[in-house]
Amino acid sequence: MMSSKLEEFAPLFRPRSHAVVGASADVTKFGGRFLRVLLTFGYPGKLYPVNPNESDILGIKTFPRVLDIPEPVEFATITTPAPTVPAIVEECLAKGIKAVQILSSGFREVGPEGQRLEEQITRTAARGIRVIGPNCFGIYSPAGGLTILPGGELPKESGVVAFMSQSGGYAIRVANRASGLGIRFSQVVSYGNACDINECDLLEYFYEDPKTRVILGYIEGPREGRRFFHLLQEVCQSKPVIIWKGGLTKGGARAVASHTGSLAGEGMVWDGLFRQTGAIMVNSLDELIDTALAFLYLPTYRGRRLTVIGGGGGIGVAAADTCERVGLSMPIFSPDLQRKLTTMVPPVGTSTCNPVDVGSPFPFPSVLKSVLETVLIEGGVDLAIISELYMSTASHMLGRIDNSTLDVRLDSVVAELAQVPVEVKQKLRKPLVMVLPVEAMAPEHIEAEEARRKVAKYYLAEGIPVFLTLERAVKALANVVGYYERRDAIASSD
Amino acid sequence: MMSSKLEEFAPLFRPRSHAVVGASADVTKFGGRFLRVLLTFGYPGKLYPVNPNESDILGIKTFPRVLDIPEPVEFATITTPAPTVPAIVEECLAKGIKAVQILSSGFREVGPEGQRLEEQITRTAARGIRVIGPNCFGIYSPAGGLTILPGGELPKESGVVAFMSQSGGYAIRVANRASGLGIRFSQVVSYGNACDINECDLLEYFYEDPKTRVILGYIEGPREGRRFFHLLQEVCQSKPVIIWKGGLTKGGARAVASHTGSLAGEGMVWDGLFRQTGAIMVNSLDELIDTALAFLYLPTYRGRRLTVIGGGGGIGVAAADTCERVGLSMPIFSPDLQRKLTTMVPPVGTSTCNPVDVGSPFPFPSVLKSVLETVLIEGGVDLAIISELYMSTASHMLGRIDNSTLDVRLDSVVAELAQVPVEVKQKLRKPLVMVLPVEAMAPEHIEAEEARRKVAKYYLAEGIPVFLTLERAVKALANVVGYYERRDAIASSD
Repeated sequence: MMSSKLEEFAPLFRPRSHAVVGASADVTKFGGRFLRVLLTFGYPGKLYPVNPNESDILGIKTFPRVLDIPEPVEFATITTPAPTVPAIVEECLAKGIKAVQILSSGFREVGPEGQRLEEQITRTAARGIRVIGPNCFGIYSPAGGLTILPGGELPKESGVVAFMSQSGGYAIRVANRASGLGIRFSQVVSYGNACDINECDLLEYFYEDPKTRVILGYIEGPREGRRFFHLLQEVCQSKPVIIWKGGLTKGGARAVASHTGSLAGEGMVWDGLFRQTGAIMVNSLDELIDTALAFLYLPTYRGRRLTVIGGGGGIGVAAADTCERVGLSMPIFSPDLQRKLTTMVPPVGTSTCNPVDVGSPFPFPSVLKSVLETVLIEGGVDLAIISELYMSTASHMLGRIDNSTLDVRLDSVVAELAQVPVEVKQKLRKPLVMVLPVEAMAPEHIEAEEARRKVAKYYLAEGIPVFLTLERAVKALANVVGYYERRDAIASSD
Repeated sequence: MMSSKLEEFAPLFRPRSHAVVGASADVTKFGGRFLRVLLTFGYPGKLYPVNPNESDILGIKTFPRVLDIPEPVEFATITTPAPTVPAIVEECLAKGIKAVQILSSGFREVGPEGQRLEEQITRTAARGIRVIGPNCFGIYSPAGGLTILPGGELPKESGVVAFMSQSGGYAIRVANRASGLGIRFSQVVSYGNACDINECDLLEYFYEDPKTRVILGYIEGPREGRRFFHLLQEVCQSKPVIIWKGGLTKGGARAVASHTGSLAGEGMVWDGLFRQTGAIMVNSLDELIDTALAFLYLPTYRGRRLTVIGGGGGIGVAAADTCERVGLSMPIFSPDLQRKLTTMVPPVGTSTCNPVDVGSPFPFPSVLKSVLETVLIEGGVDLAIISELYMSTASHMLGRIDNSTLDVRLDSVVAELAQVPVEVKQKLRKPLVMVLPVEAMAPEHIEAEEARRKVAKYYLAEGIPVFLTLERAVKALANVVGYYERRDAIASSD
């Protein structure tokens, strides 16, 4: 049912030559900032600034118009004011450019005059040039050396997550935040008003792209509803598609109209879409990233039965409430297993029925190790969450009590404790999840936060996903499990 | 209806003399850690370590038993194993001690034998000594120089927020996290199994205490349901009570039983309690703290109409969705006001109908200022949220593009931009809320996070509440508005 997008979109995502129309040496100008960011990121192909008033920008030969460029060009970025854009796209087509991204705003989202300009571009596109935008931040494609504004510092390595975003702001935010968690992208595409390439085209590309394993979307109003629905149904059978739908409420729908000029659609219709296609609905940027992380680290996770190991009973109570609210369960351990665990944990202030309360947020490493191994082997659970133990911050919190020998001793115990989940995961090959909350938010506690982030990075590198709160961890897990269950139900009903 | 708790609980919260039974020089022991933390925090009264095997701990004269202390003693902390505790409480009573906190575990939460020990203590308490615990982390009361474990570094200043927590882990977590946001406490009480003093007694105290303005609770199962209900009804008429109820689900209720041996009660019953008393129900530690912050900074906020000012349309769409989900509204601005705003913001990539999209997360300070003033004066809204503009991190994100003069210029523009909300608030005396998200989570980006925290601290000091996400901000606001609406409805139905 699909035409091959891989070849067609190559000039878009890996252009060998690139004209920047509206380039400038002045970084207060949009085209100036874009050119700088592109150079910072390190675009590897042939670059042609285009500006009628300059002959040289940052040492690069500059041309008055794209038609003046003597060599063939594959791709162009356009940053000039909206009224100038339709003629520039025409020139790009005449030049033989295969695809353009239009970062300029002032089109459909501002009213009838802008809509007329946008329709001109759509007609030009139909004659043989593909267009991303207008009213967007463009494309981040590490394999092609392309980045979005202000993404000069985004990772240069490619990954397996794709993100299509109708909002430019969310494109850069998701790219930044997810990168900080070690998530790497195949592409992030801010596609704005979608006058030519829309979410359907991008979905087809990501479906075909063998490198992309998880697809994320921030979508306000898809341009081709029916096509989108059928595509989603097909794509979700092989790759998870996680969608944050903006404008599900009435107020949100109104805001959508003035943002990308789309029709946001009714909440009820979208509920049905998620149910029938198997796409995963999320309601915030955090949930979007958490769920992507869960799919990356637990790509085949299907169990609803889990155990939570924490230090302090209140945490176990919250864990049980939280799991049940999202449809996961913490089965009660058998009396035999409970008796066995009782011999491992301190005699008082602990609990072994599931959740397991090891009695303190800072247990002996040997206690955590034996409990973790035992519940994973004998507990009849699919996964263990280690929640809010002091893997990193104990030395900061307890260490200050005494600045003599205590610090050193505690640091080595913290290091030993932090190592336990990694050892158990390597030994048993069972899924583990860590919850490492930000303990204190004051500027004075920034060292504790740095220690926390280093520990989180270490676990991520060891294949253990890390979440900021237990609520966010179990919601992400429930999203993964729900995806597989819906996918199988839809497949068997076909 | 209430007896005066202020005088009765003075020995508990501001004891002039304090015996630590189970004190030790060995910090691997519970009593040893507690004594160190108390000394670090700086307990100002007379301190008496009690330990039959020592005559001197950390240079402080130590007594074999409390009865051996030659002077009168007001308060005792007990950290010895459960079976020894009932006799020690008896001795404390004989010594004339007015109140004790029992940090030891191994009571009702572990089964019939522990329950028997706990009942002995309850009977002793009835004869003239008040008891906090057992199975708790004790009391943090800055005015009395008391702190909980491991709270040696908690602020020494008192504040207007009280927190009663059936979980010791949450007592220290809430104290730590809230302190980092500048929230100061009158008391934090981890009261564990509540064998004598329970949530009703504490609620009475906080109600009478003129210093306490906002009351927080983490509650699993109140010991006196009917009394608790009637008290809440009365207290909520003058002070907001924000409750995180642990064990609302079946799984959670089971976990409660093994944590504090309480009966958690049914979700449905609790729904009724919140509706009929006016107490505010929250579902996570983050929401508990966010809501406390909102009450502190917007103590009389009653409006449901607000505006969100952000940079980038996707943020406006999410804002509208988020507000509507919690029952707040973003009214559409009049055509006149929209026209006026249109002259202030850049001509494209912006939106003025509410939410206001100023076109970039990094607008000109003059643009933000004129927009903010205009909507607050003419917009017919009760409050403005400034969402996710780069108040702190712009220099880190954009500054790296060019390390020459650009950095300096950007830093001064960032400073000017960050100043706008403070100036507008001082000038117009209207409520403002900031959303300052953590942009990147990698250890390498810790500088940006430190800058963000400093800016957040600055706004908090200037009376502007700061939240991490828009979702969390509007939920906290809705909790404040909902409290006043329910309070008034309950008052008028009496």
